[in-house]
Amino acid sequence: MLSTLLTIENQQPTLAADGGKRDSDLILPINPSLSVTLHQDQLKSTTTVTASRYFKEDRIWINGKEENIENPRLQTCLREVRRLARKRRNTGDENSNTLTLNYKVHICSVNNFPTAAGLASSAAGYACLVYALAKLYGLEGELSEIARQGSGSACRSMYGGFVQWTMGVKEDGSDSIAQQIEPETHWPELRVLILVVNAEQKPVSSTAGMQTSVKTSALLKYRAEIVPKRMLEMIEAIKQQDFETFGQLTMKDSNQFHATCLDTFPPIFYLNEISKSIINLVHRYNSHFGETLVAYTFDAGPNAVIYTLEQHVDEFVEVVKHYFPPEENGEQFLKGLPVNSVPLPEPLKSSIHMDPIKGGIRYIINTQVGPGPQLLEDLNHYLVGEDGLAKQ
Amino acid sequence: MLSTLLTIENQQPTLAADGGKRDSDLILPINPSLSVTLHQDQLKSTTTVTASRYFKEDRIWINGKEENIENPRLQTCLREVRRLARKRRNTGDENSNTLTLNYKVHICSVNNFPTAAGLASSAAGYACLVYALAKLYGLEGELSEIARQGSGSACRSMYGGFVQWTMGVKEDGSDSIAQQIEPETHWPELRVLILVVNAEQKPVSSTAGMQTSVKTSALLKYRAEIVPKRMLEMIEAIKQQDFETFGQLTMKDSNQFHATCLDTFPPIFYLNEISKSIINLVHRYNSHFGETLVAYTFDAGPNAVIYTLEQHVDEFVEVVKHYFPPEENGEQFLKGLPVNSVPLPEPLKSSIHMDPIKGGIRYIINTQVGPGPQLLEDLNHYLVGEDGLAKQ
Repeated sequence: MLSTLLTIENQQPTLAADGGKRDSDLILPINPSLSVTLHQDQLKSTTTVTASRYFKEDRIWINGKEENIENPRLQTCLREVRRLARKRRNTGDENSNTLTLNYKVHICSVNNFPTAAGLASSAAGYACLVYALAKLYGLEGELSEIARQGSGSACRSMYGGFVQWTMGVKEDGSDSIAQQIEPETHWPELRVLILVVNAEQKPVSSTAGMQTSVKTSALLKYRAEIVPKRMLEMIEAIKQQDFETFGQLTMKDSNQFHATCLDTFPPIFYLNEISKSIINLVHRYNSHFGETLVAYTFDAGPNAVIYTLEQHVDEFVEVVKHYFPPEENGEQFLKGLPVNSVPLPEPLKSSIHMDPIKGGIRYIINTQVGPGPQLLEDLNHYLVGEDGLAKQ
Repeated sequence: MLSTLLTIENQQPTLAADGGKRDSDLILPINPSLSVTLHQDQLKSTTTVTASRYFKEDRIWINGKEENIENPRLQTCLREVRRLARKRRNTGDENSNTLTLNYKVHICSVNNFPTAAGLASSAAGYACLVYALAKLYGLEGELSEIARQGSGSACRSMYGGFVQWTMGVKEDGSDSIAQQIEPETHWPELRVLILVVNAEQKPVSSTAGMQTSVKTSALLKYRAEIVPKRMLEMIEAIKQQDFETFGQLTMKDSNQFHATCLDTFPPIFYLNEISKSIINLVHRYNSHFGETLVAYTFDAGPNAVIYTLEQHVDEFVEVVKHYFPPEENGEQFLKGLPVNSVPLPEPLKSSIHMDPIKGGIRYIINTQVGPGPQLLEDLNHYLVGEDGLAKQ
């Protein structure tokens, strides 16, 4: 018995993904946050979950390699989904799937983007897993509370478009859930460029980093006072499609998140020299035009996520190619939505006036806002083979 | 008529040098701060001031090159010293020098360390200038208020040893002055290693950077609430010669200062990849021993200032040489107080476990706490020639 799901999502925070966690077991945040779910055509996690009476134990394969199912967060997600399924059956929910809850599951998950490189792979992966398990057991409705317990920001990735994660006030975390602010169709001109600087594993996991920040950063608790007001301004900017405000808030919030990482003891550095050069480039680009045409945000890693509007993509990508020329023997530099090559005006180059850094950026993914998890019906997408093991 | 002064000092902040300025003309800080005046045998500014009836205008040479005397901060120092001299004469102060205040002055100043590289060259320079002008006009007493108006942190450099800069409460800034906490003889084992990473001019002057931070950093105003308490703890740690507390506070305060730079908009980056590697190295070194044996602080630039005790200098310098091996054709790597070469224990190397970065550090200056400005009587030190111009 196979249930397959392709959930195709990845989220990037516009306000801090993980602005600190007030309870690190339940993964309750110390501030609300907001993210944009990116489109599945460019960035996706795909997960197949299958249950069988013949399986002797729960098992998981990530990107083709079997991983330890005893991981506490995985265990929490499995336990909570099964608990919810059992509860709904006991209350006689007619929609509940008749699959026995005693069967063990085999889970296969793959990402088409680098894992643990600050590209929210755990958010995408846990959202996908919880959604897949829920489908397997025939569960509907609010699931972001469970996804949150796998990876905090995964709760937001349960929805498409623009999503907020509310702090909640309850001790058990049951009201710390995700809510869609606007659907993915709301701001069709918005584009997202991911500048992949370095796909190496990051030295500090964002969860471990956050726990140290909550313990040691004196500034973090002040940030928790600043963020709620910014959230309201950000939601309004999204609703109004006001890119100037959206971009400024995005950049300021990213910088402040990284400031609290530096105020952590010992300090955490996610930005590298290329990240800083991208930041300088964006400020000089905007300064040339006298308005905010592009905005950066950085999650727990050196890769930049650039927000801009469709009409500026071609020129800004050309600027990036000019100042971070690709290596001759490197991989394909432009991925995702098509980009047209355009000439760069000399006055713009004079304004930016930076030395090019060859190979500083590995590649660019051009994408946009996308929907939440999607069920894939096509059997060709199954990641678990007839033998119940990960397909090679 | 020549008055010559060799003031031989440089200061490095252990708590933020310039934690923000509440008034950028008067240079009034938004938080108190504390610094250690470094020893003149290793780092010094030397200034000769001379006045003559034959000089047609005030002139200044810095490091052998004539600079614009119209610089507003220079003008403030000249004006304020002359005003004070005039006031004391009018009140019949017997100690006042009879040199006419109408004579123009020629000023020559040299630093024996890189200018504008985050090594507090302007603090040293302005303190030296104000002290020299005061000697020329026969002024005694409190002068740090004038030095402050040249370069904020220069007020602290008017004293030797451990010095605090109080915020003051008066609008005219007359109570925002420097006070010695302990003299330079207080903690004889304390050593200061300056790891010179990059002697290039920094892209943002610390004064301009601070003004932007005060305007744009939301976290900076919270930092102003944190610093006064840390100051009291720091003063106590210095009085008790408690290196563990002194070191921890120093590192945390440095990180927090740089965090507010990152929270500035556009963000300011003073630390580079080598700075971060030094930070990691220090944390791993201390972690190996389970106590704080060395501590870093970074001013407005990438160079590290390391505090440690005399007994750890040899080993820590050996560690720095091992992980940042000098270029073969580079300049002399070790400057200042002598350092003995010692073997590095294998377990220590295993604990640190970093890839060496060749040429990452240009040189190390080994120095210690030193006295305030000193008058040089030896004519050979005069920087102004018989012709009234800078000696070549």
